[in-house]
This record gives sequence, C-alpha cells and structure tokens, in this order.
Amino acid sequence: MNEFDLIRRYFERQPPLLRPGEQGSLLPVTQTSHLEGQSLLQLGIGDDCALLRGPLEGAHLAVSSDMLVAGRHFFHDTDAAAIGHKALAVNLSDLAAMGAWPVGFTLALALPETDPHWLEGFSQGLLTLASRAACPLIGGDTTRGPLTLSITVLGQVPHSRALRRDGAQAGDDIWVSGELGAAALAVQLRRTQPAQTVPIEALQRLNWPLPRFDVGLALRGVASAAMDISDGLAGDLAHLLAASGRRQGHALGAVLDSRSLPLAACLRELPPDEALVLALHGGDDYELLFTASPELAATVAQRCPTAHRIGQVTSVSGMLLSDAKRRTRPLEPRGYDHFST
Amino acid sequence: MNEFDLIRRYFERQPPLLRPGEQGSLLPVTQTSHLEGQSLLQLGIGDDCALLRGPLEGAHLAVSSDMLVAGRHFFHDTDAAAIGHKALAVNLSDLAAMGAWPVGFTLALALPETDPHWLEGFSQGLLTLASRAACPLIGGDTTRGPLTLSITVLGQVPHSRALRRDGAQAGDDIWVSGELGAAALAVQLRRTQPAQTVPIEALQRLNWPLPRFDVGLALRGVASAAMDISDGLAGDLAHLLAASGRRQGHALGAVLDSRSLPLAACLRELPPDEALVLALHGGDDYELLFTASPELAATVAQRCPTAHRIGQVTSVSGMLLSDAKRRTRPLEPRGYDHFST
Repeated sequence: MNEFDLIRRYFERQPPLLRPGEQGSLLPVTQTSHLEGQSLLQLGIGDDCALLRGPLEGAHLAVSSDMLVAGRHFFHDTDAAAIGHKALAVNLSDLAAMGAWPVGFTLALALPETDPHWLEGFSQGLLTLASRAACPLIGGDTTRGPLTLSITVLGQVPHSRALRRDGAQAGDDIWVSGELGAAALAVQLRRTQPAQTVPIEALQRLNWPLPRFDVGLALRGVASAAMDISDGLAGDLAHLLAASGRRQGHALGAVLDSRSLPLAACLRELPPDEALVLALHGGDDYELLFTASPELAATVAQRCPTAHRIGQVTSVSGMLLSDAKRRTRPLEPRGYDHFST
Repeated sequence: MNEFDLIRRYFERQPPLLRPGEQGSLLPVTQTSHLEGQSLLQLGIGDDCALLRGPLEGAHLAVSSDMLVAGRHFFHDTDAAAIGHKALAVNLSDLAAMGAWPVGFTLALALPETDPHWLEGFSQGLLTLASRAACPLIGGDTTRGPLTLSITVLGQVPHSRALRRDGAQAGDDIWVSGELGAAALAVQLRRTQPAQTVPIEALQRLNWPLPRFDVGLALRGVASAAMDISDGLAGDLAHLLAASGRRQGHALGAVLDSRSLPLAACLRELPPDEALVLALHGGDDYELLFTASPELAATVAQRCPTAHRIGQVTSVSGMLLSDAKRRTRPLEPRGYDHFST
C-alpha cells in the first residue's frame, strides 16, 4: 500500500455530514445554524490545497498541511534554522502552486527536549521566512515527543483563478519553473558523506528551498493546471495527468523531451543518465510543474523568465521520454513514496 | 522552561511582515497585491483559536492546531478508533470553547507502518466524529515516522460573539460546563494497571471526549470569557485570569468553592483530598471553563443545564480555594505541562 492508496482507501470516502439536531449530531439547532451549516468547501482532498469560501468577496481560502519528521524529511544534523525555514517553505510552496496569496500559518511542534540554542535557530529560520512571505504565525501547539513538525498554511486566491492540478488538456505544453535535481543530489551524497563535501548549490536547494510565489501568482489565468514538485517530476506529473484525466473522463499522457529538462548546474559533471534520474525522480525541488495552451507560450515565457517548456500533454495514457536521438522510452511514474519498502 | 515560556520566548515576537516588492519579500507587486496584502488576522497566538476575517459577512474564521504523540497523549495500546476520535475531539473542543461553528479540518499523520487494521479503526473513529460535528476532512499529509497526529480545525463565529479567554471581569461568576476529574483518574490508574480494571466512566471520558458545542454556542453573547479545560481546571483558570488581566492592565484572581466543584461520579469513592486534586489539577476533561456576569446566572443555568457555578473572579492577584468549613487556602495554578521535568 503506498501513500496515495492509503489516503484514497481510508480517508477519501467520508460518511455524510449530519445536520444540526439530527440523531447523533453534536451541533444544536440555533437561530444561526441554517446559515452556519452551509458548506464552505469548494475543493477537498487531492490538490496542493483545499479550497473554502474565502474571506474576500470572490476569493477562495486555500488550506494545506504538511508534516516533517526528523531523519526522514531532514537529516538529524541539519541546522535548526534550515529546519524552521524548510518546514514553512514546503507549505508555502503548496500555496504558490495554487496561485494563492499567503494569509497565515499554524505550527504544531513535538520536541524531544527544550534546547534554547536549537529553538533560537529554528524560530529564527521559521519566522524570517514568514516575514518574507508576509505570512504570520497565528497559533499552534508544542509538546514533547520525537522531533516532528506540522504546519498548516492558509492563503487566498480569486475563485476563478486558482491553479488546480486537474485542468490539463491534451495538446497543452508542459513547463517547469526552474532547475531540477540539485536537492536530490544533496540527499544522495549526504547519505554517505558529510555536508562539507556536498556542492553548496545542492545543499542550498535541499535545505533552503524558496516558494515560487513569483511564478504561481504570474500564472493565474494562464496555466491550465499546476502543482509543486515535491516528490519528483515524473511522479508528480503522473498525479497531475491522473487528476486532469479523471476530471475529463478519459486518460491523459505526456511526452517529455529529455534535452529540454533544466538540469541544475551541479548535475552537469555527472554521467548524463545519472543526472537525468535525479532530475526526473528525485524530490525536494519545490519548483512548479504546470501546463498551458501552446498559444500562451510567449505569455508564459514573458511572465516566468525562469520557466522551461519540457513536453506536451497527450490523449494517450502513459508517459514517454524522448532522448537526444529522438528515440522514446516509457517514463516510469516513480517518485518519492513515504510508505514504499 | 515550560510550554508557555517557550511559546512566548521563541514564537510570540515575530519580525515585521515585509510588503510585496520590499527588499527580501518573496511576494511580487501585482495588480491585486494591495488588496491581497491586507491582514486578515484579528486575534493571534494565545487563545483556543486564532481569528481571521471570515468567509461570511460579519464572521471570523477560527483556526486551531493540536498535536498528539503516542505514549504522551494516549497509551500505546489505546484502541485506534479512540485515537482517531480523540485527535479530532480535542481540536473541536477549541472551536466549541471559542463559540465557533465547525467548517473543516486537515490531518497530518506520521505512522510507523501501514497496518490496515489500525487504519480502518483510526479512520472510522475520526470520520464518525467528523460526521457528527459536520466537519469534513479537507486535506492533509501522511508520512512514515513515530506515531504522531496533528489536526488543524477551521470554524467560524460571528465577530462580536467569539468567546475569547481575555474578557473576564472582577465580580464575574466562574462556571464549568460539567463534571471534572474522570479522565485524570483513568490516566492515574492506567499507569499501573490494565484498562479492564479502570472504571468505564473514567476510560470513556479519557478516550472518547465530546466537544461541548451545545455549551459554546449557547454561551455566545452570555459568557464574558471562555476556554476549554485540557490541562486541568486550576492551570487553565490561571491562564484565563492572566489573559483577562493583561487585557485590562491589572491583575485578576479567583476564589473557588471546593464544595461546588462537580466531581465525576467515579471520584466519589476516593478520599476527598485525592478526588479534589484530580478535579483541580488533572487534565483531559474537555469541559468548558467560563465566566459570566452574576446578573446572567439564571440565563447561564437555563441555557447550560449541566453547568456548575464554582466561584468568582476577584480583583486581587492569586487563586484561593475555600473548603467545607469556609477556610481558604491558596490554589496553585499547577496543571499539565508538556515540558515539566
């Protein structure tokens, strides 16, 4: 059972919501319960964020939660400031991928001990990024336990302009917002060697990712679908195609051109095949993956100067990768899976 | 350093939020950034929930996060359905204590393994309560790690009617919404003996608490201050008095009458002093603690038939407890502290 099966199987089918006063309901019938009982939910489980009716007229509230566990999402010896930064950055990246503007966040934090030095660094990394994204810490919880962080971010987005992952059409161009594979290289090297011997660019991308609000906000009304790349391009693209295909009622696929994949500079000294694997299947890039109609290619290029067009959505199920000699081979949707064995 | 010092010291003083386009800002200047850059925050860290400008005209959005760690917030052998139920219940309790109506929740879940039997029970306990509170699961995250759950709930409340904890006035009556101490008895007994030997009422209160929406919604416009009792009456009352005192710029205190404390039935066979300690300093009650003007006593009693008036707010710092012989002694604000040693 992988992470996505688990969510589908145990958490997607929910029992019906009881009405106030109905047998078993915990909610009383009050003067206002008719109004307050209205569902605010516009989009539930499965995208970068859930969307609720938002505080501004015509806007949706975007909500997303991520959890980071020591030893899994970051190495135990990672700088506390980088942990604080990254925990918020990966959540803000979900807002950016939705085209949403940050509103605020909550932090739930389990700590094995209260080490003032660690907390000083952690809160400084966390709150500096919060300041840069104009996204205040609005609440949370602290407890003792194995080092685990869970952040929930709130944002807002005009309702017709949210960048959902299920809007890709056959014929759309596929784009990524910037270079891939550097963080994956850092993860690979750090498994066997100390941080000092890892290229600084790679470590920087792994530990200090920046949410691409510049791209997400510029793509409102332009991209047909978007999501952030957290588990690796191939796996995340498969999710985007599956969601879009489900919505349209027929399968979608993709052809990617390996020559147009923007490899991070630190990958260029590796054997080409190895670099390609890191860029396609490595995780932690936090660039945006998006699709747009080919007529909008010039608009995309103008609004997102760092974006690269890497392929096309097809109406045939499955993903293909073409190489320098224009031979194609199947591209496995293999990405990072937290429950793979 | 306790939990509250930790929050104050590292997370309450936040650097200023940068404006879009300002040096270091991650947000671009766009056509809409003036509008979207407006702060929606009405109340930040320190109450049961944060309050943001809400989706309904004149309403606030209430947001709260709690984290539960195996072995700390529940015994390792607790029934999976009870864990799912309680993780959501303690969060819903924060909404109820704010007088808020549930909107939806996110779940971040770290699991040591994917055990279908456990997940079946867990999701059933979780989603059944979600159904009863009309509060859908709207998103989240799953990962491998030591069993840890973090839930963020969203609710809404008319803005002039939120039950904040900082509104208590000297002379107000102090109330609790129901019986105290049963969950604390269960925790005490479970430390040394198996679940089967613990009174069923005590286990039920520990494992299957119900959020008091009936009380919280009925208290809108009636209570001057409210919060839920999660860490023990004495400690939580001290927080309510401190928050209210800070807001008014002078210290507040309380006198409690030990004879009016509503002890859970399962405590009545204990020596009176032992029962009193559990009711005053035990945690996990999830009843509401609130204050109201004495003129409203009849209204409170009518709207909340389970509520008990247990004392009065004073304008003198410190808490006192009077006994059956009307002798008073100081009441220590000792509650559950996750970082106490």
